[in-house]
Amino acid sequence: MRLATRHGRAHLVTDQGFVDVSAASHGRFSHRVIDLLTQLDEVGTWWDEVHHEVTEELVADPALDAGLGPVVDQPSQIFAVGLNYHEHAREMGLPSPTTPMIFTKFVSSLAGTGSPIPRVSDSVDWESELVVVIGRGGRHLTPETALDAVAGYCVGQDVSDRELQMAASPPQFSLGKSWPNFTVTGPWITTRDEVGDPQNLGIRCDVSEVTFQNSTTRDMVFTVAEVVSYLSRVVELRPGDLIFTGSPEGVGQGQKPPRFLDEGDIVDTRIEKLGSIRNTVVAPF
Amino acid sequence: MRLATRHGRAHLVTDQGFVDVSAASHGRFSHRVIDLLTQLDEVGTWWDEVHHEVTEELVADPALDAGLGPVVDQPSQIFAVGLNYHEHAREMGLPSPTTPMIFTKFVSSLAGTGSPIPRVSDSVDWESELVVVIGRGGRHLTPETALDAVAGYCVGQDVSDRELQMAASPPQFSLGKSWPNFTVTGPWITTRDEVGDPQNLGIRCDVSEVTFQNSTTRDMVFTVAEVVSYLSRVVELRPGDLIFTGSPEGVGQGQKPPRFLDEGDIVDTRIEKLGSIRNTVVAPF
Repeated sequence: MRLATRHGRAHLVTDQGFVDVSAASHGRFSHRVIDLLTQLDEVGTWWDEVHHEVTEELVADPALDAGLGPVVDQPSQIFAVGLNYHEHAREMGLPSPTTPMIFTKFVSSLAGTGSPIPRVSDSVDWESELVVVIGRGGRHLTPETALDAVAGYCVGQDVSDRELQMAASPPQFSLGKSWPNFTVTGPWITTRDEVGDPQNLGIRCDVSEVTFQNSTTRDMVFTVAEVVSYLSRVVELRPGDLIFTGSPEGVGQGQKPPRFLDEGDIVDTRIEKLGSIRNTVVAPF
Repeated sequence: MRLATRHGRAHLVTDQGFVDVSAASHGRFSHRVIDLLTQLDEVGTWWDEVHHEVTEELVADPALDAGLGPVVDQPSQIFAVGLNYHEHAREMGLPSPTTPMIFTKFVSSLAGTGSPIPRVSDSVDWESELVVVIGRGGRHLTPETALDAVAGYCVGQDVSDRELQMAASPPQFSLGKSWPNFTVTGPWITTRDEVGDPQNLGIRCDVSEVTFQNSTTRDMVFTVAEVVSYLSRVVELRPGDLIFTGSPEGVGQGQKPPRFLDEGDIVDTRIEKLGSIRNTVVAPF
């Protein structure tokens, strides 16, 4: 099942087009994706029963992907893992971490596919990331059971202002990764049952039609299950929480010479089975 | 005016006791503090008109301060400033920062006065802090106008697990400051008009009746107005957002030898004009 937030309302993404879950269910289900993440089985059963009855009025043209927002519009918490791919750590001249490096991207930076990325400095960089969307959540999850707490996955772009990211001493990454629209998630949530093993997904980023990142989630230092378990030993994971699981090699700062984003650049981020998101770089706002 | 979240509902703290704002206003005002932060003038005017009419049933005994939760229960964003007092930087053996060091305390760690603090390691430390509660918020605020975006202030305790805080390389502070109940705010919000200059408040922390921190907000490296302005140039500040503005000297790690929290310790945190909060250290949970 695929769940999108479109014009602020939860939609199923079907072969026929986008279906407004709350409208099509006559209000049985909430219009907010965050509320559906702990009811995926019920939504799936309902859709199996009614999908042949849903009238055309309720289905938007599948080509009309305008209006797609961040997959969850008001998460309680956004976690991000730094240096979580071996080859990315290497290109940054650093050893692979031995303990997960956790920071946040502040909620006001959330955006969806199609949103403009402001070029706020001379060092705005891309980081393509697999994003975990928490379903049931909880605390004290083991690596063996951690994925049961996950609703699904989506594509993420962890846009980073390297200058602000490194400004303090010791550097605290969160603020430099939180300019408006720097936290892109989309195009929709693909539920866990349709994704299978999260450690076997191709992940890629093209900037203005040049491929810079082209890797696989097999290169992660800490697996998705390990990261979810690690976080849950400290904090309570809540439905709708997002986890940016780190970026593979091929960021702008890793190029020789470094290649940062310019106005007019188009950032195309895609992950196998999850779709793609596309954002254009514009003047600061 | 003083606004508390008590048993999950917004209360005015009056000389007669706690008044449930939504109930006493017959639903004119929301039962959530976060909704009132942009309506403080209206709430104040209403209270001036009706306070002599409010019946005793609506006023809880002022001594019954049980049920006080975090002042805002679901903020969008929590910001924290590291090393923001000159004398605290000195006791940590570090120079005063030249740019604000910003991290987060994850929302699931919020607690109110009276909540137990889990002793999760041998290095659980206290940090008494003035907390800013955002009212109108916004972006691009100048230091001269920044305080207009602030609703009020409260007492904060930024409990910190030094071991986890420093575990990654470079250390990212947020997770080690986000165990359950590590983000204490209380006892209530005192609105800006009753506080006056936020850079002239005594701030103190007693641990099991020994005074360890006893300073004033005059020692801040970046003033409240400067911090609010600085953040707003990057992120959008939203009603109910919290800013922990840093701790003065006298934390446990700064003692010779270091003195960390033990089970049974009572942490009493107080700020002039804002009241006090009190939390007991317990076994991990």
